Amino acid sequence: MQASDIGLVGLGVMGENLALNLERNGFAVSGFDLDAARRQSFAQRTQGLKAHTAESLAQLVASLQVPRRVWLMVPAGAPVDAVLAELRPLLAAGDVVIDGGNTLFTDTQRRMAALEGSGILYVGAGVSGGEEGALRGPALMPGGSPEAWPLVKPLLQAIAAKADDGQPCCDWMGHGGAGHFVKMVHNGIEYADMQMICEAYFLMQQCLGMSAAEMSPVFAHWNEGELGSYLIGITADILKQTDPETGDALVNVILDTAEQKGTGKWTSQIALDMGVTAPTIADAVFARTVSAIQPERVTASKILKGPVAKVAGERTAVLPKIQRALLAAKLCAYAQGFALLKAADREHQWALPMAKVASVWRAGCIIRAHLLEDMRRAFAANNDLRNLLVDSHFASVMADCEQDLREVVAMAALSGVAVPAFMSALSYYDAYRSARLPANLLQAQRDYFGAHTYQRTDKPGKFHTRWGS
Amino acid sequence: MQASDIGLVGLGVMGENLALNLERNGFAVSGFDLDAARRQSFAQRTQGLKAHTAESLAQLVASLQVPRRVWLMVPAGAPVDAVLAELRPLLAAGDVVIDGGNTLFTDTQRRMAALEGSGILYVGAGVSGGEEGALRGPALMPGGSPEAWPLVKPLLQAIAAKADDGQPCCDWMGHGGAGHFVKMVHNGIEYADMQMICEAYFLMQQCLGMSAAEMSPVFAHWNEGELGSYLIGITADILKQTDPETGDALVNVILDTAEQKGTGKWTSQIALDMGVTAPTIADAVFARTVSAIQPERVTASKILKGPVAKVAGERTAVLPKIQRALLAAKLCAYAQGFALLKAADREHQWALPMAKVASVWRAGCIIRAHLLEDMRRAFAANNDLRNLLVDSHFASVMADCEQDLREVVAMAALSGVAVPAFMSALSYYDAYRSARLPANLLQAQRDYFGAHTYQRTDKPGKFHTRWGS
Repeated sequence: MQASDIGLVGLGVMGENLALNLERNGFAVSGFDLDAARRQSFAQRTQGLKAHTAESLAQLVASLQVPRRVWLMVPAGAPVDAVLAELRPLLAAGDVVIDGGNTLFTDTQRRMAALEGSGILYVGAGVSGGEEGALRGPALMPGGSPEAWPLVKPLLQAIAAKADDGQPCCDWMGHGGAGHFVKMVHNGIEYADMQMICEAYFLMQQCLGMSAAEMSPVFAHWNEGELGSYLIGITADILKQTDPETGDALVNVILDTAEQKGTGKWTSQIALDMGVTAPTIADAVFARTVSAIQPERVTASKILKGPVAKVAGERTAVLPKIQRALLAAKLCAYAQGFALLKAADREHQWALPMAKVASVWRAGCIIRAHLLEDMRRAFAANNDLRNLLVDSHFASVMADCEQDLREVVAMAALSGVAVPAFMSALSYYDAYRSARLPANLLQAQRDYFGAHTYQRTDKPGKFHTRWGS
Repeated sequence: MQASDIGLVGLGVMGENLALNLERNGFAVSGFDLDAARRQSFAQRTQGLKAHTAESLAQLVASLQVPRRVWLMVPAGAPVDAVLAELRPLLAAGDVVIDGGNTLFTDTQRRMAALEGSGILYVGAGVSGGEEGALRGPALMPGGSPEAWPLVKPLLQAIAAKADDGQPCCDWMGHGGAGHFVKMVHNGIEYADMQMICEAYFLMQQCLGMSAAEMSPVFAHWNEGELGSYLIGITADILKQTDPETGDALVNVILDTAEQKGTGKWTSQIALDMGVTAPTIADAVFARTVSAIQPERVTASKILKGPVAKVAGERTAVLPKIQRALLAAKLCAYAQGFALLKAADREHQWALPMAKVASVWRAGCIIRAHLLEDMRRAFAANNDLRNLLVDSHFASVMADCEQDLREVVAMAALSGVAVPAFMSALSYYDAYRSARLPANLLQAQRDYFGAHTYQRTDKPGKFHTRWGS
């Protein structure tokens, strides 16, 4: 039997599909899972292919070419540590371990530190694209031991999605936890993106009285323009799906409680820790938490008052406004994510290739969107761009759309329709473009009750006033 | 020399003022600080009083009645651990250590666990009120070892502020980190409260063209009504203060960059961890972070477009709207804070006395406000109240004010004035009172790309659809 090029540990739908993708691209793969049923299913699905099903981790390792490449697709957290503990004595200096899970970047850094001195190379790789992406071409965001990159590059770039210009959606993000950090921010943006699409849907439903079937072609139409993206496309698909049991639109019988797995929360918490302004991502997370207390909301809905009539207008007039508002809000969310990457890069000295981050997100991943090509271009022109919004192209898109975002926010406010992400995108935009904010009063308050001092606009230094005396 | 009733470690302005407050209330105090200058200042300030300045921790401990009471007022974090390490061998079973700093509640829990078996009792006590409060009467939120409460209660309740009904603003919050958790949430609410006042000020300035001198009496007037509170009162004071150097209003020459010390950030991060919806607190933290990048904002202000004309109106018409909008937004922020307390209580089984939390906040602390008496009443009637907004009194206040909040948000949106806390309060209100949110679409998206499954409205279970096929 030919030695395999790579071994996959964890044969859930993601691991299995990545293995099949590797095999299709000419690489011999070994696979192992603790679960015998999954091993059996893998063996069946890979019959006749350049694939080997191992019955133990040791067998998996023994089946690999040296230097060995072992790719973990097990749940983030304790399972990764458990596999690593068992794997370490089986590996030698120069071998590479890839963790493809949604791992917190500090865990990746801790695991790399623990391997120091062993010569074992470590890659924390963000993988996005869901099960379809894993099989047909995901976006991959690897980072970690720089010496590992040449050893995994041919495999990862071969199986990655390809952007319209043919570039693989896989590039080296940097040392340490850079890859997992980039993936985390990808997911934070994804939270905001999904929430804003839901808010557009909510406005069409509440203010324009549109049915799911009527909305589907609207999203399909939007998908042809600047908003074109995977998430808009699947929204069009979802809205036209009928529930076979009731004959109603399937979306109408789905319970309105969103779940979450933690990456949006991490993005928000880390933004808070780093002092980076990312309210739209955090508000998208909070939109999920308030959705989750559905029975409490039903009770509250009978007690708390709101406007009786929704502010409406002609669909033909309002829909293009919602479309441009969504584009503006989306740009604000992306700007927050990229600003967080920039700040983390300064702190961790990853030398993040910003244009490549945008490039990698152009295809394969959940947030893939036409406008990522413009973002790639913006960062290719200026890797030090502090904020996407001040790039001349995006500043002009915002100039075209900001009035629509304002009108849509005002309409939602007056109609009693909750649009937390739209609102927070608008206040982010307006705060960021304010040469002067009211924080002077806030610093005065802090100085008043806590003697925290303040700075002045006209000279350097820290000052304290005995207020009110 | 008479043995002292209590020892203060850390003679900064807070520690020194608390010591003077204790002495004024009849207790003999010892004081110690690592800094000789502070010891000297303390000795001078306490000349002729029942006070003793210790030259070492050992001397301080030796000067105390048994069981000893040692109150730490040192910066949260490593300094507390350092003092505890030195203090522990000097203390015996039955002695009490009080940490009065802004300590993260999990640190308090860790320190209590480390003291287990020693018999040394531990109290994590939130202290609010700034330097004035420390001297004249702070709000105190003690929690920790239940056996410690009778030993510290007479001292703490004696020095605490008194509410209008004569009750001391100090009560036992619960075991473990309960006291520090309550104080953290107090500060989270404080962040939101301050930010919303700043937004009201910003709207008066930007939309109504009012000067600081013109605004001061407006805040003074508001302070007489339902908005009556410490923060509104000091805002009126601040706005009338003239800068002696320029002759301008002092607030006008203060730089608009707000600083922060971390408690608002902790509140937001823990809300995210616990899945509690607290967007207005988080948005208040983000309002500080965007204020902090002042030079970047100045650059952005030259690039990013907004409305040329502000939406205005007659001051006499608009000011009452802003007033009621502020009240509504403030209630939403308090509701978030109390909901977080409720959720933490369920998780930690503190048996938090919700009415007492509101009671303790009625005087002495930074967020003291008339409406806390109504909150006390609401929780006294129902300790299990899930959310303040559904209490009948507050539901009716919201019904009176919500339209004004909507109009003010719409005005800000159309005027290009950033009001993140107002907006997030409104979207919190509207989401919370929505029997149905658009999270059904979001779950459908999650199921589409990640097979995460969804629930249905018409029957139990988890379902997966092969979408778009």
